Amino acid sequence: MIPAPLLIPQRVLLGPGPSDVAPSVLAALSKPTLGHLDPLVLRAMDELSEMLRALYRTRNEWTFATSGTGTSGMEACLANLIRGGDRVLVLAHGYFGLRLAEIARRCGAEVTRVEGAWGRPSDVERARQAAGGGRFALVCAVHAETSTGVLQDPAPLRALADELGALLVVDAVTSLGCVPLEVDAWGIDAIYSCSQKGLSCTPGLSPVSFSPRAVERIRARAQSSPTFYLDANLLMAYWGGPRGYHHTASSNLYYGLHEAARLALEEGLEARWERHARLGAELAAGLEGLGLELGVAAEHRLPQLTVVKIPEGVDDAAVRGALLERFGIEIGGGLGAFKGKVWRIGLMGSGASPRNVALVLSALRAVLGR
Amino acid sequence: MIPAPLLIPQRVLLGPGPSDVAPSVLAALSKPTLGHLDPLVLRAMDELSEMLRALYRTRNEWTFATSGTGTSGMEACLANLIRGGDRVLVLAHGYFGLRLAEIARRCGAEVTRVEGAWGRPSDVERARQAAGGGRFALVCAVHAETSTGVLQDPAPLRALADELGALLVVDAVTSLGCVPLEVDAWGIDAIYSCSQKGLSCTPGLSPVSFSPRAVERIRARAQSSPTFYLDANLLMAYWGGPRGYHHTASSNLYYGLHEAARLALEEGLEARWERHARLGAELAAGLEGLGLELGVAAEHRLPQLTVVKIPEGVDDAAVRGALLERFGIEIGGGLGAFKGKVWRIGLMGSGASPRNVALVLSALRAVLGR
Repeated sequence: MIPAPLLIPQRVLLGPGPSDVAPSVLAALSKPTLGHLDPLVLRAMDELSEMLRALYRTRNEWTFATSGTGTSGMEACLANLIRGGDRVLVLAHGYFGLRLAEIARRCGAEVTRVEGAWGRPSDVERARQAAGGGRFALVCAVHAETSTGVLQDPAPLRALADELGALLVVDAVTSLGCVPLEVDAWGIDAIYSCSQKGLSCTPGLSPVSFSPRAVERIRARAQSSPTFYLDANLLMAYWGGPRGYHHTASSNLYYGLHEAARLALEEGLEARWERHARLGAELAAGLEGLGLELGVAAEHRLPQLTVVKIPEGVDDAAVRGALLERFGIEIGGGLGAFKGKVWRIGLMGSGASPRNVALVLSALRAVLGR
Repeated sequence: MIPAPLLIPQRVLLGPGPSDVAPSVLAALSKPTLGHLDPLVLRAMDELSEMLRALYRTRNEWTFATSGTGTSGMEACLANLIRGGDRVLVLAHGYFGLRLAEIARRCGAEVTRVEGAWGRPSDVERARQAAGGGRFALVCAVHAETSTGVLQDPAPLRALADELGALLVVDAVTSLGCVPLEVDAWGIDAIYSCSQKGLSCTPGLSPVSFSPRAVERIRARAQSSPTFYLDANLLMAYWGGPRGYHHTASSNLYYGLHEAARLALEEGLEARWERHARLGAELAAGLEGLGLELGVAAEHRLPQLTVVKIPEGVDDAAVRGALLERFGIEIGGGLGAFKGKVWRIGLMGSGASPRNVALVLSALRAVLGR
């Protein structure tokens, strides 16, 4: 039995990502496939690198995209920077901080995991104490924790990393394109994100950027990284210089991300940040107006991902099911320690619109009977 | 400076992949993006698994796609099956056999690499002697070597693997959908392929399949695999059973591969194999008619990828450049030891048509002045 062609409806994606993809990005995804070494693809990659530099606010030469989702970018940063036995300090106050620690462990690091309460940012002073003045290879933190909706300011981590002799690795999966992010000004050495949240492309690519110091460390490896697929030395030879074959990248995903990055830069980063801040605040006020309690205090709240506590006696799955079935709206459930306890409502990239704020508030009011 | 939107021409892709993507597959890629845990996406994944089983001729429960290119599938098979110190026997007579050995080494295996001449299949008897009757965890080989255009029959490797107590791992990147492949009948324990060759989708997904024995070995790991992104235990929990979040897979790539698999099964595997065989033979005869020498003897030649020796005095880059510029035709150059020495002409999936055979022969005749 051969299944029928897929019939895919138009949803409104207001979960933790993917976010709604703009029509011109969807159209770009279906332009004719080209070879991964076609001169036109190589030129598109150069333009993509340049746009990713602008989005990350960096002059880092090695700014490109791995052929995988955000987790591939996380693994690329860690597997290339960690050498067996390295000490790695991870600030974890949510699911993705814990994932950073887990991947660092698999890469052979001796991990010091500083766990903070879910729903708040990590305390840098506590991390400093946990490090105990030792030498570390990396300090890792999550800029926008997708599981809790918490913003962590990476800037103060630079001083800590310097004290420990470490490079600073930042997870920007849910922050890029949504909230202020300044890779060079904040002294970030390695950063990764995704294509499907603040940039509103389909998933499948992870923008990464390495500082000159990080590249030096990667180039100086005596032992090759444990991963071949995400080996940064091989990826750098494909994205620049010799243009050597490493893997058969998807031209179509490049087209999509190229168009999504174009749209973000056409809007302008400051305007985009302002739009997310304004609409996130509107959504938060509207949710509180429905008598719902938010998961994060205003000063640490992500405008692009609002975490709401599920009220006592309300059936998580039933509410999300009704939003999906009756209104075609996706919101996110909880992850890890927050499973069954919170909803996560995303307003990301092209999905961050007054229309979507109005829609989700109205639909939630109907489903909750408020 | 924000770059202009990409203008992508219609090429004819007759290299080693990607192959030309059918219009309905391109259209599928731009259907509305959905969340990776949307019930409709989960259903599409179930259908995709079922179709991949049919394409691989297997009843293996764990038949799914990793979110990456063919190399991600190679790494997924090796990194999940190898435990540090395991002995791994690799038959290598080309670039991708060598890549298998390299990735196995990075996974901590003690690799016995049996190197054969490029342009011929590996000699199973030599591999048996090299193994010296020892115990091995894996025997690895490439079904269709993309760098040399050589077909290796995997069936006789089952007996060798049995003698060594090993699982049999096969690279089907360039074979799936083009030439006969019988995962269950041939006793293959782990296999991986790609989306962009015999199946004619865009790159970005790697169909993999694990036999029950392979799954048992993966589930019994005491140490987690070095890769988190490609951890088969976590991927199995996403593709089946608990449907746990692991990574944010691209619904759009799933749509594309779903449609490509549908088209392959609508045609029928036997009909598809016959079409490739017939057109590959036509192309080979046509190339010899132009006075060109083929790289592989007829009995070991891949119909879907014909390797041609570049005639003395002919400029490799100039010829491929002229085909691309004047005719919009991509053919492949040589890889590794064959760089600058051969061309690789692919007739894969929807690109394997009488029209393309006629076109590439005529264009080559014009460019070579024959």
